[in-house]
Amino acid sequence: DDVIYFLFSFERILCYLLTLILTMLRTDILEWVAIESDSSNVLKRPDLHRMMETTAQKLRLMGGTVELVDIGEQELPNGQTLALPKVVTATFGTDPNKHTVCVYGHVDVQPAKLEDGWATDPYNLTDINGNLYGRGASDNKAPVLAWIHAVEAYQALSMELPVNVKFVIEGMEETGSNGLDAMILAQRDTFFSDVDYIIISDCGWLSRRPALTYGTRGNCYFFAEVEGPKQDLHSGVYGGTVIEPMTDLIVRLFLHPSDTLISPSGKILIPGIREAVAPLSDEEWKMYQDIQFDMDSYKNKIGVTQLMYSNKVDLLAHMWRYPTVSVHGIEGAFSDSGSKTVIPAKVTAKFSIRQVPNMDPAMVKKQVTDYLHSVFAKRKSPNKLKVTMVIGAKPWLADTQHPLYEAGKAAVKRVFDMDPDLIREGGTIPIARTFQDVTGKSIIMMPIGGFDDGLHSQNEKMSRYNYIEGTKLFIAYLNEVSQIKKTSV
Amino acid sequence: DDVIYFLFSFERILCYLLTLILTMLRTDILEWVAIESDSSNVLKRPDLHRMMETTAQKLRLMGGTVELVDIGEQELPNGQTLALPKVVTATFGTDPNKHTVCVYGHVDVQPAKLEDGWATDPYNLTDINGNLYGRGASDNKAPVLAWIHAVEAYQALSMELPVNVKFVIEGMEETGSNGLDAMILAQRDTFFSDVDYIIISDCGWLSRRPALTYGTRGNCYFFAEVEGPKQDLHSGVYGGTVIEPMTDLIVRLFLHPSDTLISPSGKILIPGIREAVAPLSDEEWKMYQDIQFDMDSYKNKIGVTQLMYSNKVDLLAHMWRYPTVSVHGIEGAFSDSGSKTVIPAKVTAKFSIRQVPNMDPAMVKKQVTDYLHSVFAKRKSPNKLKVTMVIGAKPWLADTQHPLYEAGKAAVKRVFDMDPDLIREGGTIPIARTFQDVTGKSIIMMPIGGFDDGLHSQNEKMSRYNYIEGTKLFIAYLNEVSQIKKTSV
Repeated sequence: DDVIYFLFSFERILCYLLTLILTMLRTDILEWVAIESDSSNVLKRPDLHRMMETTAQKLRLMGGTVELVDIGEQELPNGQTLALPKVVTATFGTDPNKHTVCVYGHVDVQPAKLEDGWATDPYNLTDINGNLYGRGASDNKAPVLAWIHAVEAYQALSMELPVNVKFVIEGMEETGSNGLDAMILAQRDTFFSDVDYIIISDCGWLSRRPALTYGTRGNCYFFAEVEGPKQDLHSGVYGGTVIEPMTDLIVRLFLHPSDTLISPSGKILIPGIREAVAPLSDEEWKMYQDIQFDMDSYKNKIGVTQLMYSNKVDLLAHMWRYPTVSVHGIEGAFSDSGSKTVIPAKVTAKFSIRQVPNMDPAMVKKQVTDYLHSVFAKRKSPNKLKVTMVIGAKPWLADTQHPLYEAGKAAVKRVFDMDPDLIREGGTIPIARTFQDVTGKSIIMMPIGGFDDGLHSQNEKMSRYNYIEGTKLFIAYLNEVSQIKKTSV
Repeated sequence: DDVIYFLFSFERILCYLLTLILTMLRTDILEWVAIESDSSNVLKRPDLHRMMETTAQKLRLMGGTVELVDIGEQELPNGQTLALPKVVTATFGTDPNKHTVCVYGHVDVQPAKLEDGWATDPYNLTDINGNLYGRGASDNKAPVLAWIHAVEAYQALSMELPVNVKFVIEGMEETGSNGLDAMILAQRDTFFSDVDYIIISDCGWLSRRPALTYGTRGNCYFFAEVEGPKQDLHSGVYGGTVIEPMTDLIVRLFLHPSDTLISPSGKILIPGIREAVAPLSDEEWKMYQDIQFDMDSYKNKIGVTQLMYSNKVDLLAHMWRYPTVSVHGIEGAFSDSGSKTVIPAKVTAKFSIRQVPNMDPAMVKKQVTDYLHSVFAKRKSPNKLKVTMVIGAKPWLADTQHPLYEAGKAAVKRVFDMDPDLIREGGTIPIARTFQDVTGKSIIMMPIGGFDDGLHSQNEKMSRYNYIEGTKLFIAYLNEVSQIKKTSV
């Protein structure tokens, strides 16, 4: 207990110093957000490569053993290939008497354009009332930097790290972590061999209360392309004579009276998909019941008057542990303002189905593809349909009683003086499942992002409060993990 | 007959000179196409104003009496107002003993971007194998210039024009000729008072055979906007909890099992709309049967293996005299390449219904708006639906036995040594109907564009052949019109 008290007191000093350090370190987050590392846009690939190099250089200057791991190429839907961003690995400390944690993070981002409705340039980090606005600020650049700052804080005070710390930082998370699975498999017996625990901070709290996350949904992302005339046509001149790809796509694929892809309320109705979902247990129901979650503040945050479900348990269940389908948009159709009288020649609908236990992406791919082709065949359209699953990520679920989670609860208690909510994540962190399957190591998700950070949305932000307190949490957590008995690994 | 023979011979000389003149005049079409006069894009409005000024200046330098007529402002869907491009009027000759023709044309264009699949920069006119590629080349800049060149040719040879020639050139045709109706009404008893005939060359041939056009379809263009959350949301984090605008829009509005907007084959099924369509007469059927039209070359041109109808009469009828609906695209949804996991907050479907006799745009507006709102109300969605009809243009039909058409047949015979096809146009030239209703004058449509010019599509072009022979046709036509007996006006 004395040791713990000492550490705690010491941490207070350390945290004070850290606040000072962070003021200096703000240049990192500024520089990182300024790099348009959009992994879904092939035209931004040079920026993405630069982002990985910047990350590696940061860790090199801190004295880490750093590697930029080549993970090959990706194949684009058009058949071309493109170099994947290298994965950054780094090691700080190799003491065999200490636990070794491996922090996973990503530095690629979702697309963002000022015209989408951002109040500030998404690639120019802007501090407004203590919030740092910028694409990737919360997802996932600031959390990755917070982990780096945690190590820097120890170094700045010439203190020894209580555990060995490794980093594995990728640049393809937003599009399905292409190439990372193979890299983890390849390095299972080398880089990952001495790793005891894997930590992921790529998610957010549910409310103003700190949280630990024990589950995520997977995601199957589909492109359904319908190709017709060799080029766009004038809708006045040709309308009525050609079988239009947009009609095939919208009217036929999304809701033919007798073959329904999604119901009007948004439920996916392809046979077999919902049947695979694990039923909600009484225990789970009770757990959801106890979680701090304010429906009104949730409605207010997203600006709607009515949600899909009017009670907390149903809502949380459909946020976390039931599948859902979203139609994201259509590529190739007219999308600007104004009124173009065009028959688009090739249109690609983009939709995704969130995966939960016990769904299997490989099976979902087959179900969706077979279904769409069978519906389209009945149409007897001369247009061509091509269905591609561009992301196929499994869901992930952890045991909240594991020592790793107990250490997390203690660290939260220490920094925030309260117990964390135990929550799940509706979004996908595909790599959690891979780490679990390939390395067999235990994983914890420890979010520091705020509940209203606007991930994937306009005006994404990270608050200074969450950034700084989050860094303190990571410092405390490294200490807590060092207390876990070696035998309980 | 001697006079006619003399004129004909003289025209041959004139046409030869014209070819030389055109070589010099190619700078006009180059300069005109270089101006991005896209009337549907409010950001291009300054270019559009410049286009009108350029047109006026061209006519002024030729000695015409030119006016730039202020037609006020347009209201945008968001409630803001924007100055409309001025309408250019010009007069060449005021001899009361001559007929007076008024040439209508437009110098605004459809949107075009290199990324849409153009082989060349759409705003840099490019001559490839005798075809002049560029946005607006055929629709409608070269035809307007061909009329101007016809006047220039007379001027170059110091010949008197056989008829008085007026021009009315607008810049809002592609978005529904906003403001022009009121301008025509206002100048009915001034500028238009001495006009005998109105000539429009804003369409194309049906085959390689020259054509005269005696009918066009109208167009009702709708925006159906569904607005939900205050901003875009992460589809993983929020999917399953919010009622998504895209689902409301695509699944609910376009095809609810019991309330169908369009059938899978693309037919509009809103009650009342198809009932208003005039039935196809036996005479009309026979006329279509005789028109030169090659189904295979049509299929080949647009690059499809199968059309909506497999026989010529059905196809022509659905191209010209039956309504059709096209879904052009969705604004606000994800439309780039890549895979963004977003729930779009506000999405606007854009679709249009082509109008034919005896449909009435005001009635169609009510039918579509009422229908969409009634369907949406059943959905009980918290999202907001807003339906706007941004274009409401009536169809137009002329009498092919009128002296104006007989003069047209003679001019075609003279320049091309063959009889023209008498055709209709699937697209819309809204102003034809307005001229007819407001001025009571007779109208002829005399196309010079090729059947494969790619209007509203990628790689729009005007062939040098059509541009030059078209100018000759206009010269010959001015002579033919001057032969019409004054009493038959």
